[in-house]
Amino acid sequence: MYNAQMIKLGSERSVIREIFEYGNARAAQIGRENVFDFSIGNPNVPAPESVTQELKRLIDEMPPEKLHGYTSAAGLAEVRSAVADYLVRTFGAPMRSDLIYMTCGAAASLIISFSALAEEGDEFVVVAPYFPEYAVFIRAAGGIVRTAYAGEDFHLDMASLDAAIGPRTKAVVINSPNNPSGAVYSAEELSALADLLRRKSAERGAPVFLISDEPYRELVYDCDVPYVANFYDDTIICYSFSKSLSLPGERIGYVAVSARCKDAEQLFAAVCGAGRFHGFVCAPALFQRVIAANLGKSSDVAVYRGNRDILYAGLTRAGFSCVMPEGAFYLFMRAPGGDAAAFCERAKRYELLLVPSDSFGVEGYVRISYCVSRETIERSLPAFAALAKEYFRR
Amino acid sequence: MYNAQMIKLGSERSVIREIFEYGNARAAQIGRENVFDFSIGNPNVPAPESVTQELKRLIDEMPPEKLHGYTSAAGLAEVRSAVADYLVRTFGAPMRSDLIYMTCGAAASLIISFSALAEEGDEFVVVAPYFPEYAVFIRAAGGIVRTAYAGEDFHLDMASLDAAIGPRTKAVVINSPNNPSGAVYSAEELSALADLLRRKSAERGAPVFLISDEPYRELVYDCDVPYVANFYDDTIICYSFSKSLSLPGERIGYVAVSARCKDAEQLFAAVCGAGRFHGFVCAPALFQRVIAANLGKSSDVAVYRGNRDILYAGLTRAGFSCVMPEGAFYLFMRAPGGDAAAFCERAKRYELLLVPSDSFGVEGYVRISYCVSRETIERSLPAFAALAKEYFRR
Repeated sequence: MYNAQMIKLGSERSVIREIFEYGNARAAQIGRENVFDFSIGNPNVPAPESVTQELKRLIDEMPPEKLHGYTSAAGLAEVRSAVADYLVRTFGAPMRSDLIYMTCGAAASLIISFSALAEEGDEFVVVAPYFPEYAVFIRAAGGIVRTAYAGEDFHLDMASLDAAIGPRTKAVVINSPNNPSGAVYSAEELSALADLLRRKSAERGAPVFLISDEPYRELVYDCDVPYVANFYDDTIICYSFSKSLSLPGERIGYVAVSARCKDAEQLFAAVCGAGRFHGFVCAPALFQRVIAANLGKSSDVAVYRGNRDILYAGLTRAGFSCVMPEGAFYLFMRAPGGDAAAFCERAKRYELLLVPSDSFGVEGYVRISYCVSRETIERSLPAFAALAKEYFRR
Repeated sequence: MYNAQMIKLGSERSVIREIFEYGNARAAQIGRENVFDFSIGNPNVPAPESVTQELKRLIDEMPPEKLHGYTSAAGLAEVRSAVADYLVRTFGAPMRSDLIYMTCGAAASLIISFSALAEEGDEFVVVAPYFPEYAVFIRAAGGIVRTAYAGEDFHLDMASLDAAIGPRTKAVVINSPNNPSGAVYSAEELSALADLLRRKSAERGAPVFLISDEPYRELVYDCDVPYVANFYDDTIICYSFSKSLSLPGERIGYVAVSARCKDAEQLFAAVCGAGRFHGFVCAPALFQRVIAANLGKSSDVAVYRGNRDILYAGLTRAGFSCVMPEGAFYLFMRAPGGDAAAFCERAKRYELLLVPSDSFGVEGYVRISYCVSRETIERSLPAFAALAKEYFRR
């Protein structure tokens, strides 16, 4: 009687959500401070003070009927200009205000981009491990999901990408800094990727687009994050302010179509159409204005860096095998024994809540979200050490 | 190379948007005060002071990382409870907090509801004149649009509905107070509609659902707006705070699945799935909290009532034929001569910007949005009178 696909999407328990709810129930039993919940990517560092100040200023100074009124579907002209100017000024990026489309966050940016591109039978290549909703949104846009695999260090594996990209590949999706691995792709590997995509586009006789999902761009610790659209012409940037400004609940981001895309104006028209198709009338008006005054700012990254350093040191000291994350706030660790679900169940006995890797498209790992308080990290280390002993003693 | 449907949706000039942009260009030439722009349904009455106060209180009192953090996909538990409690308390409605799904506004409420219901080959009946995006969203959900027609007074015509509802009809969409006519459906006609839908459901052997789109519920002048879900069990309410609280840019509303719907929990799961499918992660967090403290409030309706009275009196005095709107802030007037597009072109010579009715699914009318300043209305009346003389002198 109801749409079966929607019932399935709405009913299937999100693994992450399930663990999060278990954590809440457990906290009620034994106290919040005794549960080490590493399940959710909800920033614990507050938005920069300048965000709060701009919110207050706008509310004080603008008439409410202007401040909260409809904006154009693509966003306020002055906000789109500010975004394009920032990208040009900061990265020398091939961006123009008339090719910026403000969105209700990263999920909207992604589904709008997939929908704008997807034609019957088109394939989209994702790089495992990957954000699970990529698959949902690609299918929602009518596309087919194809999987390439990252290397052991979670960086791009050109051979795997080469094998995954075929004549029906419309786009490749990358995410750097990466959820769930924390990998940040270097200029060298982006150049190699661009070379591969140019070759594949020539073979195909039509562009293979590059969709760069960049909500963690500002959350990086030891390296630069090269600007993807400077490496490859047919690029769409999907951005969100959820993580950089700690505003995930406010749903604000953008799609930037590179001015170097083939028929960029037509692609932008398709982006606008996809926004309309999915029922996004405009991005939230108040937060469009707030982000325009906070471009390039970020929450205090030093907090996440400190969390990462303490967590990584504690885990490796305990004997776990993990790759040092270069950005974002996730650590993707090998599950000793290879069975991620079993390892997560065992970790629960120590009140450690981790996410098994299966929904990210790979087996045998766990994701640890370290956007939690420093105290939680410090207090969790003895629990990780005790858990390690169970495995490495055998 | 790009999705043709999306390019079409993104490229086709919205008639309303085109007139609005013409108005802006004309205002630059002859002064804003000399252009009488009745094209857009953007509330000109500010949000109630209590909205601004609650915004300030939340920003002052809540830690930003809590205030702006992710909410559950269906919304904050306390907000869903507040909405359900309000609906039960105010209307005695069959609503429960676990069947309330907070959305990014009316468009999101609609596409989510259509997507939750639509199965292969399902038809959705709209009542012309109707909000043009209904057709976009029904098709986006995979449904087929069928049209019934309102009577001369813009109220429901049971014979037309009877003819439009067939064995593949999944739902009927109503909108009261109505855009573009201002009609408010009475308890008697809702009872008659419910009788018809029960008969059709029995014939079909499955419910014909009633989708009630209610963004103008609080904007009503001389009558009550009966609560639709009290008349018919299989009802989904699509609500938005855009018009009642003058917050159209902030994208906040809800879907309320009546607890009396057949398999209401399964329908709600499909609603959740449809929200996920279309990339709505959660409704904006700050405004979820703001509306919870402002349920039942509205912008100053007296302003719109005054506008309506002056406009209606002026238009009828000039000789135009129109039905007195009972709610919303639109007046749907017969275009003298019957050619709406030609009439709108002629009106432009008097700097009167009106929307022809064709995109609302009927011919021979114009929509006049009177959510403008009182001065605009008063200064426009001589222009309307002069325009009338052109037609009625002949």
